[in-house]
Amino acid sequence: MKIGFLIIASEVLDGKITDLNTSIFASFLRSHHLEINKAITVRDRAEDILQGLATLFEDSDVIVTSGGLGPTRDDITKETLGNFMGRKLEFSPAAVEVAEENYQRFSRTFPGREHGYAYLPEGFTPLSNSTGFAPGLTTSHRDRTFLSGPGVPREFRSMLEDHLVPILKRLRRSDEVLGHFIVRTKNVPEEKIFSEVDPKLWDQLEAFGEVSSLPILMGVDIGVKLTAPTAAEFEEKSTALRSLFEASPLKPHIWGFGRESLEEKIVRRATEQGLRFGFAESASGGLCSHRITTVPGSSRCFQGSVVCYDESVKQSLLGVSEETLKTYTPVSAEASREMAAGLARLLKLDVAISVTGYAGPTGGDDGTSVGTVYVGRAVRGELSAHVYHLKGDREVLKQRFSQAALYALLEEVEKIAEG
Amino acid sequence: MKIGFLIIASEVLDGKITDLNTSIFASFLRSHHLEINKAITVRDRAEDILQGLATLFEDSDVIVTSGGLGPTRDDITKETLGNFMGRKLEFSPAAVEVAEENYQRFSRTFPGREHGYAYLPEGFTPLSNSTGFAPGLTTSHRDRTFLSGPGVPREFRSMLEDHLVPILKRLRRSDEVLGHFIVRTKNVPEEKIFSEVDPKLWDQLEAFGEVSSLPILMGVDIGVKLTAPTAAEFEEKSTALRSLFEASPLKPHIWGFGRESLEEKIVRRATEQGLRFGFAESASGGLCSHRITTVPGSSRCFQGSVVCYDESVKQSLLGVSEETLKTYTPVSAEASREMAAGLARLLKLDVAISVTGYAGPTGGDDGTSVGTVYVGRAVRGELSAHVYHLKGDREVLKQRFSQAALYALLEEVEKIAEG
Repeated sequence: MKIGFLIIASEVLDGKITDLNTSIFASFLRSHHLEINKAITVRDRAEDILQGLATLFEDSDVIVTSGGLGPTRDDITKETLGNFMGRKLEFSPAAVEVAEENYQRFSRTFPGREHGYAYLPEGFTPLSNSTGFAPGLTTSHRDRTFLSGPGVPREFRSMLEDHLVPILKRLRRSDEVLGHFIVRTKNVPEEKIFSEVDPKLWDQLEAFGEVSSLPILMGVDIGVKLTAPTAAEFEEKSTALRSLFEASPLKPHIWGFGRESLEEKIVRRATEQGLRFGFAESASGGLCSHRITTVPGSSRCFQGSVVCYDESVKQSLLGVSEETLKTYTPVSAEASREMAAGLARLLKLDVAISVTGYAGPTGGDDGTSVGTVYVGRAVRGELSAHVYHLKGDREVLKQRFSQAALYALLEEVEKIAEG
Repeated sequence: MKIGFLIIASEVLDGKITDLNTSIFASFLRSHHLEINKAITVRDRAEDILQGLATLFEDSDVIVTSGGLGPTRDDITKETLGNFMGRKLEFSPAAVEVAEENYQRFSRTFPGREHGYAYLPEGFTPLSNSTGFAPGLTTSHRDRTFLSGPGVPREFRSMLEDHLVPILKRLRRSDEVLGHFIVRTKNVPEEKIFSEVDPKLWDQLEAFGEVSSLPILMGVDIGVKLTAPTAAEFEEKSTALRSLFEASPLKPHIWGFGRESLEEKIVRRATEQGLRFGFAESASGGLCSHRITTVPGSSRCFQGSVVCYDESVKQSLLGVSEETLKTYTPVSAEASREMAAGLARLLKLDVAISVTGYAGPTGGDDGTSVGTVYVGRAVRGELSAHVYHLKGDREVLKQRFSQAALYALLEEVEKIAEG
């Protein structure tokens, strides 16, 4: 089954927002062992939408669109889909019913016939929206199935969950299982993995399926696309792949298997061990804490943090000594150790991680360059610090600083787990 | 000039990463008064890349691609572009030179002739990469200009900045100025803006250019696309539009004009007033601090925060009383006021904002539902609190909680500024 995705969003092509719906749609399809074949982003202009539809029509069985279903005049998806199929807009009692339900959910009254939501192209079915006002749409046209959802990510997601599942079940032709075996590595450049660390690896992996190598924040994800006629055979292939990696010289660089994120793994492992941790964040500015608290259940192990942006906070709250700040500057191994130690004391933590560095645009008065960061560790009384020299603009550096801190945290949690 | 963008990235269609390059490319073009006409995302498969190129070829003057230039075998952009134009891969001394430079920048040695980077399709020019290893590419083919950059956002961005500017200058046919006039509103649903608050507004705006309405986090951005033959005439139109909004009943909902972000505006205004602020973050988990510290220069006004995830931290560090926590629970107006007051005292702040709520998946034991959040304010000794009942999953709720907190902060900063 080939699935095409049309993103109707001038705001994405104008850079006002980043498209999140492709990733939402891809994750949704993955859980149903399917994938997006091609995605096209067009402006909210009839001519462009028609062209996009025509392109996807050529090689898709299912065409999903996002955006342009709202109440304002720049929302023209419905009319344009109708034009594409030669169908006229008409009053739809079913659409009124769905709109009324959507409005009731938010304790508001649907204006009725006068509202644009009351009209649909002939033969279109309105779809209830469990998280917003605008109804979705579905129809069939020349053997293709169409589904349109709103552009707001939350609404688009609920539209897929509420309405696409039965459509896919109906269309599904085989029980083939499709999935990705993913290996997460750190501290080795992409290029070296397959040339120096394990030159045979790529060929070995390719025997299982399409191989991909994806540089991410301070690491590389290696993926192998697996297909199998049954779930049991899929499992078998996964086990064989896992053994291959366990035996590879790449092993010391692997920090995880599968889609579990770094944050999720830290929370899971720390909770298993009953550990309490937190961060003393200067240069990462709260990002470490934010990343950890995206994980449901993080409150079981994450106690809290101090974002010590100003020097006075490092001193008064974390007890970093004035002498250290003067002699070594706040961006130093000494300061990072004192920050971690101070936080561990203050919040009674098993593991405290500190981050102090220069995210730019300017570095230190002493010539320390932008991108320099110290990650300090206080683990049950033992202090240590590592320095990293990273590249990027302020946003990228904050991401990398937090990544270095989370790698450090996972390392310490795993060390404690291993006793 | 029509610009097409081909994103070569299976990882985007598989939902492993979110595409950031469209937004980077759009922002880059905007600063040159240009825009992306259409974007297509395809898998790293020759057949799909060829189809994408063919579609863009139809109606583009410039075709930019991102991705597939790396050193591993799944990187096939170069070969496929060559095939599309019927050009063969050949050894390129210029490519070796560029690759050598890229490697030297990272203190590594380019392996030379044996490396894939040493080969280019006939007639292609290699482009130096100031932030990574893989060289970019450019060429012309049947009146279209092609430029290919790496998929890593940082490298893609530097490729545009280093190499696309002269190409655009050469191609540019007129001096027309294109830009967007943007108005940022809050606390009013999209639908009501143009039907109840100001029913004449849309027509008035449309007289200036294409109008768009974009719901964002707890607000709506209204955009008007302006074009003008000269910069002066562009400025004139902007001024007229601004007056129109200043006189509209929508005015009380407008928190800003233009692309300045909420975070940037807060930092600018607080710095102008010499104010010191910080956050006591429970349910937002560090996100308020992270958002503020993305702004260069935020250290001039942002002092620091306490992420008080565990109750013990609320008590020991912020001095929230045990009685308050017992009588009212930690998610209450009382607790939020004490959190803000405690933080203001601890860090000596002019404005302290606190956030306490339920981001899910579970709500309070007392039946308080997921999405409930209290934002407390301590402003030079005066305490207040507001409650919000928001919707969404954990990630969306954290974003909305932080948005409510930042709106509150801006409000207080503006109040102080107005004396």
